[in-house]
Amino acid sequence: MEKARIGIFDSGFGGLTVMRAVCDLLPSEDIIYFGDTARLPYGNKSKATIVRYSVENANFLVSQNIDVLVIACHTASCLAKEQLQKILPIPVIDVISPSVKLAISQTKTKKIAVLGTYGTISSGVYQNELRKLCPEIEIFPVACPLFVPLVEEGFTHHKATEIIAKEYLTGLAHKGIDVTILACTHYPLLVEVIQKILGEEMILIDPAIPTAEKTRLVLEKGPSSSSLSPTYQFFVSDNPQKFGQIGSKFLKKTIASVSLQNVDPQDNDLKQPAFAL
Amino acid sequence: MEKARIGIFDSGFGGLTVMRAVCDLLPSEDIIYFGDTARLPYGNKSKATIVRYSVENANFLVSQNIDVLVIACHTASCLAKEQLQKILPIPVIDVISPSVKLAISQTKTKKIAVLGTYGTISSGVYQNELRKLCPEIEIFPVACPLFVPLVEEGFTHHKATEIIAKEYLTGLAHKGIDVTILACTHYPLLVEVIQKILGEEMILIDPAIPTAEKTRLVLEKGPSSSSLSPTYQFFVSDNPQKFGQIGSKFLKKTIASVSLQNVDPQDNDLKQPAFAL
Repeated sequence: MEKARIGIFDSGFGGLTVMRAVCDLLPSEDIIYFGDTARLPYGNKSKATIVRYSVENANFLVSQNIDVLVIACHTASCLAKEQLQKILPIPVIDVISPSVKLAISQTKTKKIAVLGTYGTISSGVYQNELRKLCPEIEIFPVACPLFVPLVEEGFTHHKATEIIAKEYLTGLAHKGIDVTILACTHYPLLVEVIQKILGEEMILIDPAIPTAEKTRLVLEKGPSSSSLSPTYQFFVSDNPQKFGQIGSKFLKKTIASVSLQNVDPQDNDLKQPAFAL
Repeated sequence: MEKARIGIFDSGFGGLTVMRAVCDLLPSEDIIYFGDTARLPYGNKSKATIVRYSVENANFLVSQNIDVLVIACHTASCLAKEQLQKILPIPVIDVISPSVKLAISQTKTKKIAVLGTYGTISSGVYQNELRKLCPEIEIFPVACPLFVPLVEEGFTHHKATEIIAKEYLTGLAHKGIDVTILACTHYPLLVEVIQKILGEEMILIDPAIPTAEKTRLVLEKGPSSSSLSPTYQFFVSDNPQKFGQIGSKFLKKTIASVSLQNVDPQDNDLKQPAFAL
């Protein structure tokens, strides 16, 4: 049985939490990861821009002969999933649908909180998907824009992060919410702070887990579909060295080699400027 | 006497603090501002990427018939100034040289701190320029990467910002430093927090002021070179509406109209994808 080749993209290294879950569940398959570090973050940018970037990222991965594409970025999943599913000739898996299904299956109170970037929250996509599956659900969406830079600076257990998290999450107390979706790949790294504020009873959904499960289902693969070791390749649009260093923390594996890849189709070298000597 | 047309670019709205200073000093001249909001922030990206983005931004402004270009972004000033000065047929003003001159003229202890993004600090450009003017100067560079997102979220007077600022700046105490350069356009919005931590005696240099003064000198214009009202035009590569809202806070003027402008030369529309229906 031939090994599958899984393509995963994100705006940066956050999507490595999704890759980690995929590696755990499908340890034999090959994975090619692209992080769009030259244009990150995606969280505050417009739909048109995110769609354009996502199509460029996906085209690069498809050119690497992948069998399935995983959009590991929540903002891109919200804003570009439909477009990618329309134009690509392979299955496209996003992080939202699997998380929404799991959240609905876990809630008893039918009250679910969703924490994400401005882009994710204001797109309303999580809200729509939850309501599609369970029309009577009550949803509490909260944009937490500072969580990503705090995680990227390693402030995961910092006093300042606790203060900011309390401020973001204070409106969720005493509402009867029993499930919270961490709708950004960086947020699972803040799970301890968030759990402390929301209480030990709160079920926190890390979308990486159900997304990996969905990938397994789509590929119809088991944990040991091949006796060959898997190949992991990493490409980024900027700062490969930094990606290797910080990324290892997200992936919980050493990232030995990262290649620079400009996916902007016409921009593969510094352009001839309009004015030159 | 004909009015000058001044082009200013930044990765986002931070450069509006520079535009504000230019407006104050040269209230009759026309200004065209470009914010590269689709690709911001610049602070953590590589030199090659920042040079490419800066050349594209500058080419757009030059196509709008400007007489002088002001690089209002510290990271771009550090990493792309030389390239822009080489290829553009008009004077190029950066935020660094004027700030360095002012800082040297103000210090008595010959000990200067520089606060900036990772890109600005690790480029070593501020350090080199300071040493060129004053070889015996002692320099204390500090990267403060969370200041930009904190300012952009409006956390300018927040407890969490104070805690983070204290952590960043604690190493500067009791060193005899008497001048600190706020080497990022966002940092002047944190002037109260920074002044409180560094003490009332510390001279804080906001680069917008000497940069505006340098622009006046280059253009050889006075405060009322024309009886005609000035024209201000704003272009961004993403989210014009958000730019108008947040930008007004930086500019301290209402921004009535912002146009969307893609400066990526080949990317003026969503590309024909490699795979399409």
